[in-house]
Amino acid sequence: MCVFCKIVNGEIPAYKVYEDEDFLAFLDIAQASVGHTLVVPKKHFSNFLEADEETISKLFVLAAKLAKQITQNLEVAGFNILNNNGTVAGQSVNHLHVHILPRYEHDSITIKFAQNHLSESEMQALIARISHK
Amino acid sequence: MCVFCKIVNGEIPAYKVYEDEDFLAFLDIAQASVGHTLVVPKKHFSNFLEADEETISKLFVLAAKLAKQITQNLEVAGFNILNNNGTVAGQSVNHLHVHILPRYEHDSITIKFAQNHLSESEMQALIARISHK
Repeated sequence: MCVFCKIVNGEIPAYKVYEDEDFLAFLDIAQASVGHTLVVPKKHFSNFLEADEETISKLFVLAAKLAKQITQNLEVAGFNILNNNGTVAGQSVNHLHVHILPRYEHDSITIKFAQNHLSESEMQALIARISHK
Repeated sequence: MCVFCKIVNGEIPAYKVYEDEDFLAFLDIAQASVGHTLVVPKKHFSNFLEADEETISKLFVLAAKLAKQITQNLEVAGFNILNNNGTVAGQSVNHLHVHILPRYEHDSITIKFAQNHLSESEMQALIARISHK
C-alpha cells in the first residue's frame, strides 16, 4: 500500500489540515516552506491523468479554499499550486497529490524556467503535433 | 487591458491549442519546455483566489484533458501542472493561468524544494495557526 493510502487509513500519523469523506490535506513532512500542505483524494489514483473529472474538480476547488485559508492565516503574499506527474517531473509518491506552497521572500523553493525561443514555423509545427489525435 | 485579455480578444496573436466559449489554451511564448502550454479562463480573474468554484473546476478538468493530449502526442513521460499566485511566487501576468509543463530528462525547468525539518511541537503550532479562522 502506498504511503499516502497508509496516511488516509490512519496507519501512518499525519499533521492534518483538513479532512472530509473523500479528501485529506496534511502538512508535508518536508515543509519546503512554512505551511507546505498536500491535498489528496482518499481514493488511490496514481496521478492527474488517472483521476476522474469529479475528483479533479473537487480536488482543485478544495485546494483553492485551503490556499486561501493558509495564506490568510500565515499572512503570506503568494503561493504556488503544483502537481507533479511522473519521475521526470519530480513525482515521488505515486498517489495523486497537489502541493500548496506558501511563498516567502527568502524561502528554499526554486521554480525557474529558461526561455527558449522557437521560430514561427517551429511553433506551428508544434501545434500540429499537439493537435494530432 | 492585461496581455492575456488581449490574446482572448484577438488583439494579440497566439498559437492556440484549444478554445471554447469560456477557456483558451495556447503555447507559452517562452517554451520553457517543448509543448509548454497555458490554460486561461476568458474572463479576467487576477489569480486562483479570485476565481469562482465553477471556473476553477472547469479550468483544471480542461488542464487534465489537455495534459493528456499533449503528453501523448509529444510522447513525454511526465509533466507538471503549475499555478503561480503573487509576485513572490513568480506570477508574471495577473490573469489566472495554469502552466502545463511537459518534462524531459534534460530540459530547462528547475523545480526544487529543500527539506526543512520541524519538530512535532512546531508542526502542531503550525496546524493551530493554519486552523485559526
